[in-house]
Amino acid sequence: MESPKKLRIAIDAMGGDYAPEREIAGAVEALRTSNEIFEIIFVGDEQAIHRQLLAQKANDLPWKIVHASQIITMEDSPTAALKQKKDSSLAVGMRLHHEGKADAFVSAGNTGAVLSAATLILGRIKGVSRPTIGTFIPAEHGTCLLLDAGANVDCRAQQLYEFAVMGSIYIQLLRKKERPTIALLSVGEEKSKGTEAVVEAHKLLSASKLNFIGNVEGRDILKAKADVVVCDGFTGNSILKFGESVPGFLKSKLSQFAEQGFINKIAVGLALWPLKASLSDMDPNKEGGVPVLGVKGVTIIGHGSSTATGIKNMILRAVEVAHTQVNRDIEAALLIPVL
Amino acid sequence: MESPKKLRIAIDAMGGDYAPEREIAGAVEALRTSNEIFEIIFVGDEQAIHRQLLAQKANDLPWKIVHASQIITMEDSPTAALKQKKDSSLAVGMRLHHEGKADAFVSAGNTGAVLSAATLILGRIKGVSRPTIGTFIPAEHGTCLLLDAGANVDCRAQQLYEFAVMGSIYIQLLRKKERPTIALLSVGEEKSKGTEAVVEAHKLLSASKLNFIGNVEGRDILKAKADVVVCDGFTGNSILKFGESVPGFLKSKLSQFAEQGFINKIAVGLALWPLKASLSDMDPNKEGGVPVLGVKGVTIIGHGSSTATGIKNMILRAVEVAHTQVNRDIEAALLIPVL
Repeated sequence: MESPKKLRIAIDAMGGDYAPEREIAGAVEALRTSNEIFEIIFVGDEQAIHRQLLAQKANDLPWKIVHASQIITMEDSPTAALKQKKDSSLAVGMRLHHEGKADAFVSAGNTGAVLSAATLILGRIKGVSRPTIGTFIPAEHGTCLLLDAGANVDCRAQQLYEFAVMGSIYIQLLRKKERPTIALLSVGEEKSKGTEAVVEAHKLLSASKLNFIGNVEGRDILKAKADVVVCDGFTGNSILKFGESVPGFLKSKLSQFAEQGFINKIAVGLALWPLKASLSDMDPNKEGGVPVLGVKGVTIIGHGSSTATGIKNMILRAVEVAHTQVNRDIEAALLIPVL
Repeated sequence: MESPKKLRIAIDAMGGDYAPEREIAGAVEALRTSNEIFEIIFVGDEQAIHRQLLAQKANDLPWKIVHASQIITMEDSPTAALKQKKDSSLAVGMRLHHEGKADAFVSAGNTGAVLSAATLILGRIKGVSRPTIGTFIPAEHGTCLLLDAGANVDCRAQQLYEFAVMGSIYIQLLRKKERPTIALLSVGEEKSKGTEAVVEAHKLLSASKLNFIGNVEGRDILKAKADVVVCDGFTGNSILKFGESVPGFLKSKLSQFAEQGFINKIAVGLALWPLKASLSDMDPNKEGGVPVLGVKGVTIIGHGSSTATGIKNMILRAVEVAHTQVNRDIEAALLIPVL
């Protein structure tokens, strides 16, 4: 009897801030911890990848390399870069996935470029106006998926509704929650509060079959009042980046306090361990990455500064998503207009 | 020679969550610490105010009471409440200011109602499309005025520009900064990034005489990259409320860690002092309140849960603002269209 075909995960080996070193280290770690239940396709500069694989003593693992001569950097304009760098690791990897030569694609590269490549090369799922990416915000208990996190800055009500549908399906399948709670971010709990688009989206969500709990406010995100909080990408991105700056702010304030005297210095020194331990959930490498929702395929985007562990977790997430039927469910859910 | 006429500050004695107790205590504190350089007009239930003044042994201080029989609560809809409760402490106090019987008005009541009352009763300054309220965010060094913080959820470019002008003048006069730095919140530093309104506002701000430093992102607020960060009220309100929830989140995470064992409990116990001391700037009572910018008058809005110290600081802020020519400068600056 033939064993079931292994999933093939393509990785943009040149994407992140520390590529290809961390990409290769993370992928090797992923293969080893998962008992090699999948294969890795490294996409990028063949020689550089080979050197890293040699350093990782990874000859016995199930990988192959697909060469790509160009790199899209963090500074590149997404759409321009995709037009000009047809042989970039990002474009080549995404095409491999589109052509069915890989079952998923992961990248810690230029987020805008990965999103554009996924939309242009893989195409949108029927019924989806705009693909979206979210972010998992660590909360007092569990996490909260904030969606959209920057992919779509100007959003109409219909788009907010679609984000809610996609987020709900993702949490249902990946977090195995029967009826994820969905909330709409606004400036007050009343349905009349918010921008025109938000007020309109409230109507759509209320009429939908989703487990919609109504509006929540900025203060409810860290409390994870809902599994999914829907907002436009401008607000989501601003909150995400504001949140990411909180640990640095704390560090700076503690340093300033420590500088005021010897006792202060000792007190801050002692405070570091419980603080770091308490906030370990805030490390984005734990989650690894976020999926591009609404495209025909499986694409996971990671933080540019992902560690090897972050890359490993992105790959394991891609394997997990590729095993589900997120996209089929999204298409089915958006087939019928809600109002 | 006659001494110069004392400023008269009217206070909504029934506004805050702990009114009138904290309102009276804070006002009495303000009078005492400032050597009675101004007078207080308490607006609200005469008997309740008298009782509190008695408890504070404040008979010798320069105050008077103007009775108002109704109260606008935190749950009231702003516009409906203003129509129905003509004799509320908020409406009566704002009218006193409008009629020139008080030089400023402060309230820790229903923010939306105070804003509406200021706009409807005092009227807009010529050239101002929409009055605004901001919030002072404590940053690594100093504070950052985030403007708008929720008064205007749907904003056009012209409004964002006006917020920038008003914020710049406020910081210049109240913080005594010659050329305050102004930034526009967006999802990237490039001028092409952001919503349509933000991209358009970037053009207006670039063409203006303001000390505009370009776009900043959510992560730059706590770094106070600019003295004033301009955004629509939906985003500003979401960030403000998200930020307000950070201390509670930290507390919850530390408690969870403390529960894991005896050593953890001791470690967290030791961490509390340096943490609280380091974050003392985050207490909104230090700032006291924020002004309504763009109306013909001086109105300071405080947090509903303001302490007596918070109320005191609101009153002192009102005195300070009433001594400047913020409104005259705003009118002059907005007289000529920028593009």
